[in-house]
Amino acid sequence: MPNASATLSPELAASQWFNTPAPLTLRALRGRPVLLHTFQLLCPGCVAEAIPQVQRIERVFAGTDLQIIGLHTVFEHHAAMTPATLEAFLHEYRITHPVAVDQPSEHSPVPVTMQRYGFRGTPSAVLIGRNGAILHQAFGVEDPIAVGARIAMALSAAIPAAVEDDPAGDANGCAGDRCEVPAPSSAAA
Amino acid sequence: MPNASATLSPELAASQWFNTPAPLTLRALRGRPVLLHTFQLLCPGCVAEAIPQVQRIERVFAGTDLQIIGLHTVFEHHAAMTPATLEAFLHEYRITHPVAVDQPSEHSPVPVTMQRYGFRGTPSAVLIGRNGAILHQAFGVEDPIAVGARIAMALSAAIPAAVEDDPAGDANGCAGDRCEVPAPSSAAA
Amino acid sequence: MPNASATLSPELAASQWFNTPAPLTLRALRGRPVLLHTFQLLCPGCVAEAIPQVQRIERVFAGTDLQIIGLHTVFEHHAAMTPATLEAFLHEYRITHPVAVDQPSEHSPVPVTMQRYGFRGTPSAVLIGRNGAILHQAFGVEDPIAVGARIAMALSAAIPAAVEDDPAGDANGCAGDRCEVPAPSSAAA
Amino acid sequence: MPNASATLSPELAASQWFNTPAPLTLRALRGRPVLLHTFQLLCPGCVAEAIPQVQRIERVFAGTDLQIIGLHTVFEHHAAMTPATLEAFLHEYRITHPVAVDQPSEHSPVPVTMQRYGFRGTPSAVLIGRNGAILHQAFGVEDPIAVGARIAMALSAAIPAAVEDDPAGDANGCAGDRCEVPAPSSAAA
Repeated sequence: MPNASATLSPELAASQWFNTPAPLTLRALRGRPVLLHTFQLLCPGCVAEAIPQVQRIERVFAGTDLQIIGLHTVFEHHAAMTPATLEAFLHEYRITHPVAVDQPSEHSPVPVTMQRYGFRGTPSAVLIGRNGAILHQAFGVEDPIAVGARIAMALSAAIPAAVEDDPAGDANGCAGDRCEVPAPSSAAA
Repeated sequence: MPNASATLSPELAASQWFNTPAPLTLRALRGRPVLLHTFQLLCPGCVAEAIPQVQRIERVFAGTDLQIIGLHTVFEHHAAMTPATLEAFLHEYRITHPVAVDQPSEHSPVPVTMQRYGFRGTPSAVLIGRNGAILHQAFGVEDPIAVGARIAMALSAAIPAAVEDDPAGDANGCAGDRCEVPAPSSAAA
Repeated sequence: MPNASATLSPELAASQWFNTPAPLTLRALRGRPVLLHTFQLLCPGCVAEAIPQVQRIERVFAGTDLQIIGLHTVFEHHAAMTPATLEAFLHEYRITHPVAVDQPSEHSPVPVTMQRYGFRGTPSAVLIGRNGAILHQAFGVEDPIAVGARIAMALSAAIPAAVEDDPAGDANGCAGDRCEVPAPSSAAA
Repeated sequence: MPNASATLSPELAASQWFNTPAPLTLRALRGRPVLLHTFQLLCPGCVAEAIPQVQRIERVFAGTDLQIIGLHTVFEHHAAMTPATLEAFLHEYRITHPVAVDQPSEHSPVPVTMQRYGFRGTPSAVLIGRNGAILHQAFGVEDPIAVGARIAMALSAAIPAAVEDDPAGDANGCAGDRCEVPAPSSAAA
């Protein structure tokens, strides 16, 4: 459950977006719960289980203000999973919510956003509360009953009073590759 | 979503109980959310889908005050689904939460509690709020994500101030076969 | 694969039959492959996996002379799985091939045919060749690809020349409770 | 079932092979049954159902002389499904049997082998008998019991007397892009 000392979610670093007219930022989405799910198009568990579950989540919570975002976090076989391949994948699997290509790192096979969140692999998912805090982060596919319960709780939380003026946002501002992951102890400072 | 004019849940009428030292009543459970699921041991959909889902619900919400109750609502093949058969069924399927045998009706193949709730068949389920109101009732198996969401909402509701002194309880008191189903319009009166 | 020294299948001992105008005997079915599958109506693996697989076998081999026989081998919870319960079970699960109730033993909770075959539990299955020999016997559910392969091989075997005059049949004749299980070494004698 | 007038299987046209030290030809495999399965790595039905079934076939018939060959028949999203992507796909999905890239056509988005066989899409599969005849061709995933039965029958067929000297082979010889699809009526001529 979120509280005042909860970890603020690091910002997304994307080299490309699909299914959205303009790039999204978690900062701009503050006030709405966000389900950020990561995948690789050649990851068997993502294709067989995680993505179908996200699509069921999408249907169940269609009437709510939950924002679902996919993040293509390629950390192996980089030449095999290009944006062209991803675009065809999204078409074939009928994925219509916004999907970002995680920004490649100059120093590591692990892309930037994946590093910021410390994702252990794919599929991973993060549920972000209305106040921008990380409510839950997991590696692998979880029981759909528990997933539904957590999202319902995130949706039922009160909308923060002054979402747009949150000063913590500045302190944790992200710019390209240099965005810092807020440490838990300083997040609420 | 529940409100002041929501339907109060009719009381259970049971001819026998399993997995509980003493009979349960919804009246006594007021203050806790209750998931009441109905089944017949020879109902294929109950055995293959509904009961496994209830058992997953039980695991996910193990640390909460959700009360799960099974109700064996035999409305056909009465001679085939005796209490002895039910007892062995509960053993073989490792069902350990309380299960009631719906009280047979003198005038109908449909047992008493099933009539009170107007269940259309098996499997059916009712989610009852802390205040005793019916939050959701369904025939058939529902998406586990939605099921999880609804139960989480029921659990997060505030506990009613004076559960034990609820005067509406008296007006809708149940005694054996003579318990009346509260009409929607009078439930909040 | 069957050969001259293969084990002849013990005869069925049934106290009751469903879905057939008259009792069946393996002796009379000699010349046709027989799939004998055992189950208990309260056995979760039987209900969830084995019986649906048998029903798929029935559809795939509908145009052949394969004879499918179910055998209700109750070895526990005897009072819970009566013939009346079985009859309703067959109705609800739409099982239309012949099903025998394995004859209760006077000396053991394990019924007679189950003892003859040495079934370890339910679900079990035996595939019997056109010549009456046991081609394959298994406990648990097997890969449907392998199951299909084995039945196809049994169907493609030549029909024995003199099925009706097989002298081995007499040596292994069954009468009520006193039918002897032919030992592998003497089966071809 | 195959007979003298059965359709001989057209030869493969491959631009690249994986999981084999040298290219395979159906001509050279004459005498062995061949299961040729086609897929596209972005085809949901291939990934979720057809390829897992092929891998189960591989396990069940591991001790036989059945040859399994995959054929990557890209007929859409060509830029998305490159050989580099295919190679990573085979690695991630642990596909270890020989896989050919169907040779792109100069005149059509449909590749050459796919045209020869008239495959309607992916997944498709062809079962080829020991004599080189097409025993069964199907679009979509079929019942595993029937699949197992057909392969067992193909395996149990007698090995043709003079596999290597089959004169029909010459008439239908394939060389690169110029191999002709034998018409059913002329196939045995």
